[in-house]
Formats: sequence, structure tokens, C-alpha cells
Amino acid sequence: MNPPTPYLKINAQRVRRNIEKLAAYAAQHNLGIRPHTKTHKSRRVAQMQLEAGAVGLTCAKVGEVETISGPGEDVLLAYPAVDPARCQRLAKLAGDRTIRVAIDSVVAAQALAQAAQQAGTVIGILVDLDVGMGRTGLQSPRDTLELAREVDRLRGLRVDGLFCYPGFIWQPADQQAEAFKPVIDKLEETVQLWRQAGLNAGIVSSGSTPTAYQSHLVPQVTEIRPGTYVYQDMNGVHGGFCSLEECAATIVCTVVSNAVPGQVVIDAGSKTLTSDRCLPAPDSGHGYVLEYPQARITRLTEEHGQVDIRQCDRAPKIGERVTVIPNHICPCVNLHEAAWWEEDGRLQPLRIDARGKLS
Amino acid sequence: MNPPTPYLKINAQRVRRNIEKLAAYAAQHNLGIRPHTKTHKSRRVAQMQLEAGAVGLTCAKVGEVETISGPGEDVLLAYPAVDPARCQRLAKLAGDRTIRVAIDSVVAAQALAQAAQQAGTVIGILVDLDVGMGRTGLQSPRDTLELAREVDRLRGLRVDGLFCYPGFIWQPADQQAEAFKPVIDKLEETVQLWRQAGLNAGIVSSGSTPTAYQSHLVPQVTEIRPGTYVYQDMNGVHGGFCSLEECAATIVCTVVSNAVPGQVVIDAGSKTLTSDRCLPAPDSGHGYVLEYPQARITRLTEEHGQVDIRQCDRAPKIGERVTVIPNHICPCVNLHEAAWWEEDGRLQPLRIDARGKLS
Repeated sequence: MNPPTPYLKINAQRVRRNIEKLAAYAAQHNLGIRPHTKTHKSRRVAQMQLEAGAVGLTCAKVGEVETISGPGEDVLLAYPAVDPARCQRLAKLAGDRTIRVAIDSVVAAQALAQAAQQAGTVIGILVDLDVGMGRTGLQSPRDTLELAREVDRLRGLRVDGLFCYPGFIWQPADQQAEAFKPVIDKLEETVQLWRQAGLNAGIVSSGSTPTAYQSHLVPQVTEIRPGTYVYQDMNGVHGGFCSLEECAATIVCTVVSNAVPGQVVIDAGSKTLTSDRCLPAPDSGHGYVLEYPQARITRLTEEHGQVDIRQCDRAPKIGERVTVIPNHICPCVNLHEAAWWEEDGRLQPLRIDARGKLS
Repeated sequence: MNPPTPYLKINAQRVRRNIEKLAAYAAQHNLGIRPHTKTHKSRRVAQMQLEAGAVGLTCAKVGEVETISGPGEDVLLAYPAVDPARCQRLAKLAGDRTIRVAIDSVVAAQALAQAAQQAGTVIGILVDLDVGMGRTGLQSPRDTLELAREVDRLRGLRVDGLFCYPGFIWQPADQQAEAFKPVIDKLEETVQLWRQAGLNAGIVSSGSTPTAYQSHLVPQVTEIRPGTYVYQDMNGVHGGFCSLEECAATIVCTVVSNAVPGQVVIDAGSKTLTSDRCLPAPDSGHGYVLEYPQARITRLTEEHGQVDIRQCDRAPKIGERVTVIPNHICPCVNLHEAAWWEEDGRLQPLRIDARGKLS
């Protein structure tokens, strides 16, 4: 089996190891795992995560919930749904599975409540508290209490807890404890405030792969939503959060040109790898070439990856296949119709069921 | 008609105007247009370009040729095909349409010749000369002559001419003449060398939207391969190559959060807009918000676009729809299953037939 390049190859053994490693950590610390499925977008991998004990799944878009979860399952939409069409589809899904949504506005609460009332279902709500990322989330513990009270009043909604995203914490693991301190304080103040008001934050959901193995440092957290941990990538390697050997997803490419001295061109450009830079090492290039560790992917255009080979012991030949670990695996997976699942030396197609689900 | 957001909207009137404007220029200067279809990836738009007089189409991948061209048409693969599978598919396509490939190695020539011999077809070859981009292309006129001679000897191939890509010329139009000088000299030397050796560069193919309207400055060029001109984007606006009113492709988004002061979040992140920066204005953000010209899309994560609204006269409301012109439209189109074609005030689906064709 020799699929045409460029193609996405997933190493089954590494996926299993990554899933088992996090499951063991979570069990030790009594934390629930609700993996963000944006990384793999595959029902098959989601089922592996559920079989390993995940308490449910996380999605960003309703189209992902529709394609990646099944009846009876428990799904969190880690994204504020506000438009009527999105809310109606969610309310319908709540008819045969547990649906929760993280929101940060009364507008979202009202839109979801109206859809749930029409569908005759109930949607669980996590109130989004900004713990420093500055992306979404209410700014103060008091703001979350006000929104929780509003949610509590609305028929069709149920207050389930708090949501936060420490996605800005990219320090090496041994320095994360310090970065977590303000997060812990803000969460504690919020939980206490809710308790005094008679509201229970039964779920406190936190996230991100870089912070996954430090989640026990934040005592309020009940469950975590890492995504990338299942495949890993060069962001993780350069950030010190994983090893090269834990990277389960690679792009197999062909060398198509060597006409420019000191350089070869591979058939993977930004349409295959994305143009995402490596966050902890912006100058490390556009991925890591396994067979040529001294090579550096210096420039991507849509279909061309320019690889500086001046530091390599030998030069890749035209027609040769090389293997690249991408900088950021999640948007990279989204560019591929399907992947190839490598197990026991054989390749079989892996559907990327939720690829391209934008709404 | 109110499609769920985020969605890609194409303004038909602007597309027609962009196509007609370039067609008029090319006719005036006796240049052929062979539009690169990577921008739109839609058979329907390719047909509009052919109806407006394009001499043929350009694709990067064989999967694009298969989905976007029809029997009897004339297609250039502006990409070195070297692996056997790709060459076989091309050789088969050459059975009912004109297929040309731009290459820069003997390996590619031999692989294509072998496939053409097996299929009993003939593939036209353009020899790729690097005129300064440093991506693909032979370095010297003499190198191109050697490859052309090798191609001329191989059964199944036909020497059709030269290929170059001045994609590094991003100067404003009025400064491009200077940048073109070394390109003109190198092409002239090459054409003369071929002529002395009894080889005819019947086609001299050049490319890029930024240089499109300066193509007549390079007298050797017989046809051009601009892609972006059909939709345009913020690269073109900031580069001075088009106006905002010529941008035909926009992303319609919904404001989903305003919890962080001075900011709103739209439901278009890098999974919708790509993370491509604007090349001539890297600090201009991730696109232009039509309804809020003072807004700046400062940060994209996969599903979130963070918009700084501190300079705006009024604040966008949660649930409000806004329209974004992307930085780089080609990879952006590749992220969308379909677009919405806006004509006479109505929206209808536009297939993106060649989306995601990687091989």
C-alpha cells in the first residue's frame, strides 16, 4: 500500500499510548477527561477515547457534534452558540444525548433557551470565565454569577457549572504551577460566590494539552478538555510537553524539485500543513523532517514546501518520500479528506468525519 | 436565504468585471490568459474564464485537472509531477485533452515519458526557469537547454516552451518595470540559446496576479497564469494591485462574544480564514471587516477571530453578522465545502469542485 502523496498517516500504537497515558493520569487525580475532538475529527478515535474512560466529548461546532457523537453520549460544545439555526440543531441533538454549551452572554442563554423550549429538550450550560486568555469568557466572578442566575431562570436550560480555558499557559510543565496561581484564585472566588448564592458549579471544565498533566494543581477543576494530546505535534515537542516519539500524526511527502542549490521542494505546502508557525519556536520552520533532522522547512506556498538542506549530511533525491511532523496538527487534519491508519505495518483509510464542519 | 455562518460569499458581478478587465488587457497586448484555477477551484468559474477567451486552464495538482477541466480543453499543470501515480493519471488525461506540465528535472521528464508511452499519449513540457523566486526552476539558461534536449529525445513528450514564476515581484505596479529587468534578460538569453540549438520556446508562460497588468513589459511572454485576480483579496488591496470594490469573495460571520472589553469574537478563525498574514501589510490583521473599517482582527485560533474594536465608532452586537475580506483568498476557498454565489440579490450554492485535492 503506497498512497499518493501528500497524505496524513496516523500511527495507531502511538495514539493508544497517548490515550492510555492521559487516562492513567486522570484516574490518579480523579479528573474526568472530555477530549476535544477538533484534533482528530474522527468518530473512530472518539470511540477509542470513550472506551478508555473519557466522560464525554468536546466539540467546537454543531456540525462536529452531529457527525462525531452518538445517541446516549455526553457532549460539550466549547463554543458560544448564538444564532438561531445553530441553537435549533443543538436543541434537537439534546433529545437523545446530553448537550452542554459554554456561553458568556445573556444573548446566547436566551437563544439556546428559546430553541430548547421549542424542541422540548433541556440544554446544560457552563458559564465561561476568562482566566487570562482574553478570548471569550466573562471577566469577573460576579459577572458569571449574574449569568448563571439568568440561566437558572430560563426554562429549557440547566446550570451545570463553569468553563475556562488556560490556553495562554505555555510555560514548560515545571513552571506552570506559578502561572496557575491567579487561575486558582479566580476559580475559587467564583465557586464560593456561586455557593453563597445557592448555585452549584458541579462541573468545572478546564482545557488545553500543554497544561493537561498539571490539571491537578487547580483543585476546583473536575474535568479537562485536551485535544492535541491524542496526536501531538511540534508545538508540543518544542514546548516541552511531549517527545518526538509521542507524535502520532505525520505527513508523508515526495521531493519534487532540487533545482535551487541547497534546497529541495516537497509536495506539502500550506494547503497540506497550514501556515501555522510553531508557537514556542517560531523560527524552527514549518514542521520537522524525520529522515533529515538537520533540514529546515523554511517557506511554504500553497503546494510547495521549500526545505533548506545545507546542514544535512546527504541530499534528499527527487522522487524520494520524506515524513513531516506538522507544527499544529489540529488545523492540518482539517485539510485532509481522509487519513491512513497505520497498524501492524498495514495502512487502512481513517475517515475524518467532521472535517470542514464550519457551522 | 440566510445560510449558517461562517460562509463564503462570491459576488457574481465583481467576478465578471475582474474577468473582463484582464481579458481586455490581454487582448490589447496579444497575451494569452491561462488562469490558475487554484483560487476558485470551481468548474463553473473556470467555464466563465474560458468563455471570456482564456486559452486554457492552469492547475497545481492532478486531482484539480480531473475535476475542473473537460475533454477537448487545454490544461497546464504548473507543478513538477514526479511520482508514478501522478504521471499515470496525467498521461491518461492527455488522451482526451491537451496536457502540459512544467518540470525542472530529468527525473520528472523520464517519469512522465514512461507514463505517456504506457498510455499511448503525448504530454507537452514547459521547462521551468527560476527567474528569482528561488522555489523551483533551473538556475541557468544553459540548464534549461539541456533539459529541453533530453525532453526532445524522449518518446511521449513534446517540447512546448518555457515556464517561469515572478511570484517574488510584489512592488507596486509602477515600480515593477525595474524588477522585471533581470527577468527579461534571463528569458531573452534562454530563448536565444534554444533557438541556436534548433528548439522553439513556442509558449513562454509567466504568472501571478500582482504582476498581471505589467506582463506586456516582458516581451518574451506569450501567456500568463494569474489566479487571484478573479476574486482578489487584502494582499491585493494592501499591495496596491486592486481596490476593495474588486474583492469578490467575502466571509460572512456572526459575532459570538463581547465579554472581553474592547473586543468582539467572530465565528471565523484560522479554520475559516487560514492563518496567512497579509504579505504587504503583516500588521494589518487577519482580514478586513467591511462594516467596521476601524476594526482589526488581531488574533485567530481555529474557530475564534478576536476583533479589536477600540477604534470603532460603535460596537458590533452579539448575534450581528459582519463581512470579512480575507488576506489570501486561495487557501481560504480551499477550507470551504461550498460557497454561495450572489447574483441579482439572490444566493445559490457554488460547488468548489477541486477543494482539498492534494495529489
